[in-house]
Amino acid sequence: MTIKIALLGAGTVGSQVARLLKEENELLSARAGAPLELVGISVANLEAERDPWIDRDLLTTDSKALIEKADIVIELIGGVDLPRELILHALRSGASVVTGNKALLAEHGPEIYDLAKEQNVDVYYEAAVAGAVPVVYAVRESLAGDTVTEIQGILNGTTNYILDEMTTKGLAFDEVLKVAQDLGFAEADPTADVDGHDAAAKIAILASLAFHKRVHINDVQVEGIRSITANDIAAARAGGYVIKLVATARQEAGKIEVRVNPTLVPQSHPLASIGGSFNAIVIEAEAADRLMFYGRGAGGAPTASAVLSDVVAAAAKRVVGGRAPQEIVLGESEFVSADDSRSKYFIRTKVKDQVGVLADLAAKFAQSDVSISSVRQDERAEDGEAELTVTTHTARAADIAATIDSIQQAKTAQVVRVLRVGDE
Amino acid sequence: MTIKIALLGAGTVGSQVARLLKEENELLSARAGAPLELVGISVANLEAERDPWIDRDLLTTDSKALIEKADIVIELIGGVDLPRELILHALRSGASVVTGNKALLAEHGPEIYDLAKEQNVDVYYEAAVAGAVPVVYAVRESLAGDTVTEIQGILNGTTNYILDEMTTKGLAFDEVLKVAQDLGFAEADPTADVDGHDAAAKIAILASLAFHKRVHINDVQVEGIRSITANDIAAARAGGYVIKLVATARQEAGKIEVRVNPTLVPQSHPLASIGGSFNAIVIEAEAADRLMFYGRGAGGAPTASAVLSDVVAAAAKRVVGGRAPQEIVLGESEFVSADDSRSKYFIRTKVKDQVGVLADLAAKFAQSDVSISSVRQDERAEDGEAELTVTTHTARAADIAATIDSIQQAKTAQVVRVLRVGDE
Repeated sequence: MTIKIALLGAGTVGSQVARLLKEENELLSARAGAPLELVGISVANLEAERDPWIDRDLLTTDSKALIEKADIVIELIGGVDLPRELILHALRSGASVVTGNKALLAEHGPEIYDLAKEQNVDVYYEAAVAGAVPVVYAVRESLAGDTVTEIQGILNGTTNYILDEMTTKGLAFDEVLKVAQDLGFAEADPTADVDGHDAAAKIAILASLAFHKRVHINDVQVEGIRSITANDIAAARAGGYVIKLVATARQEAGKIEVRVNPTLVPQSHPLASIGGSFNAIVIEAEAADRLMFYGRGAGGAPTASAVLSDVVAAAAKRVVGGRAPQEIVLGESEFVSADDSRSKYFIRTKVKDQVGVLADLAAKFAQSDVSISSVRQDERAEDGEAELTVTTHTARAADIAATIDSIQQAKTAQVVRVLRVGDE
Repeated sequence: MTIKIALLGAGTVGSQVARLLKEENELLSARAGAPLELVGISVANLEAERDPWIDRDLLTTDSKALIEKADIVIELIGGVDLPRELILHALRSGASVVTGNKALLAEHGPEIYDLAKEQNVDVYYEAAVAGAVPVVYAVRESLAGDTVTEIQGILNGTTNYILDEMTTKGLAFDEVLKVAQDLGFAEADPTADVDGHDAAAKIAILASLAFHKRVHINDVQVEGIRSITANDIAAARAGGYVIKLVATARQEAGKIEVRVNPTLVPQSHPLASIGGSFNAIVIEAEAADRLMFYGRGAGGAPTASAVLSDVVAAAAKRVVGGRAPQEIVLGESEFVSADDSRSKYFIRTKVKDQVGVLADLAAKFAQSDVSISSVRQDERAEDGEAELTVTTHTARAADIAATIDSIQQAKTAQVVRVLRVGDE
């Protein structure tokens, strides 16, 4: 019995998958319990230059014909519409599917999982979140005997790299983005990364698994990092924080909150020290307590490692039987509204450097029922203006918005930035 | 179809397993795909006090009769001989086994895995290493498409707590051990922890999985932390290191090296910041690059979380078929000899504070072909004696031993401590 594998896409990750399927074939086959054979690679352009280990005889542009020959289909094309069509085709033809396509799953996951269930085949997607870090496994299987209460993650390497460079070198967002694009760390169109959509797709997938509720990417409250300035970072540091793009999923009293925000992470928190393009995920569960996972969240080889782990699992099930864990949906998803979302806040303001201004500002917070935990006044007053930074206790987003509104209207202060603060 | 579960042992972990099986039964059953029923708990003493959630009607002293009624047997007794006998009995009677018994597996693993294979049942042991941290999964399944080159871990919470307290409070080993015993963090007989045997069993299990070779606990070179003094810790800190009990498994050119040693970890290394009773594991793999896992390595609830994840996996396989990944053994194990083991070393000496002593000492290292990377001389000379600390480049253990020998014989210096230094 030979397990026939179709590879859709030969980009950065696909090419590494092809390499490892060739170089490590003996070991992979031993682990799967049967020989693994790559039967074809579908690409858009047959003539494009390829890595030397890519066997050109395997290349084809006819994805559907290739899929119909395979036991396992690996989808690494990118985009949403074409992968969706091909994955549905694969499931209908009885193949198991391995994909790293977070955008697709966060948008069309349920359609795919339902068809897989109907067809008695499995969909594997460890590579969709945090590259080689087995976090899909952790929430889907390892914590199967536990109750996850919160997940917090740095799930996008590009934005973490940008914030890291801004923090360590004091550079502006645009400068760092340009360097990152020149170095190939950021895409020419960086929207998915810097506006938080990539992290949103990933946290939607993790939230679905952790809470057994369907979470669509549109259910995620998203805020990117474009507006973050070197001054924000300096002010955060003065307060003992590092600014990170944090994806959060939490469940309390049956309601789910899923967010991606630039967040002030206390310097003592495990996420604060995650540098460069690494990803990290902190999971809080009732019995397991705090777990942390850390590793390369992207890149050809690390993501290929996750893909092959799924291929081995899918192949082993073809050989000895069994199924991947099924999607478990326990009731309708109820979400915390944007207004009711609660956290601590860090509010940078500019005020006239004169007696009584702090008292006026404090009064505005009190009027909206927002409790202040600390106030820091910058010593360097310019043009008679001082920077005054307020950190609040946990407050409702709507109450914070009302406070800001009343401060701006009364011209008590000019509000420069409002950022969330993470827990210790 | 109901999955019948027998629990052997109702200690710290066993009691938490019983609690979660009761409180989370609905969710666990949904995940397993069939109702889970705890059919009995075997204990040594029927009259002992128990946690309130323990149903006394389930208690029995007849382990074998209980085993014969079960589909899944959870072994949480501790010790080696009795658990071995009961696990073999369970496998022979066709039950799947879930155990957290590292000492048993590191000693008798092959006998158990072979019988399980013969009987077509599975043995699960996520709880044997690092509590709720899914590191057994990571090396056995997640990295199945990759090649692990090195594992380094802090795998024993008790010793990490002791070293941490010595480091932060400047206390002596004996003082901290006593406090740890009073607080229940250390056993009355602390041998398994402080002499490194517990960590050795765990790294033997991980090495077997990672390298597909059989590694027995006796194959592990072990050194505990009893001899570490507050002075060692201070000297390490002056050099930019933290002393941790590190378990290491590496494979190079087909030879395996598995060790547990007090190790000087550079302050920038991810393992340096692991505090208190937490466990952490850093895995280096060819494609995945560096991965790190971190969490509570012990304690009733975290370990129970790992046990239940295995129970769900075992139960799901009973329901839909399939097998756990089988032990893969690729050839005989060849080990690096103790003499050939290589690392950087940190050597504390006392010398007469006089001209020429550093030159004499350096000559001894050169004679044994050991290259020095740095020398630090303590300014506080007492009785005309100074402390001189040498850090070497990577060297063979036998060459270091020869150097120390020749230094002692020639009375060039008094060697106070020889410790390994970890990589960056």
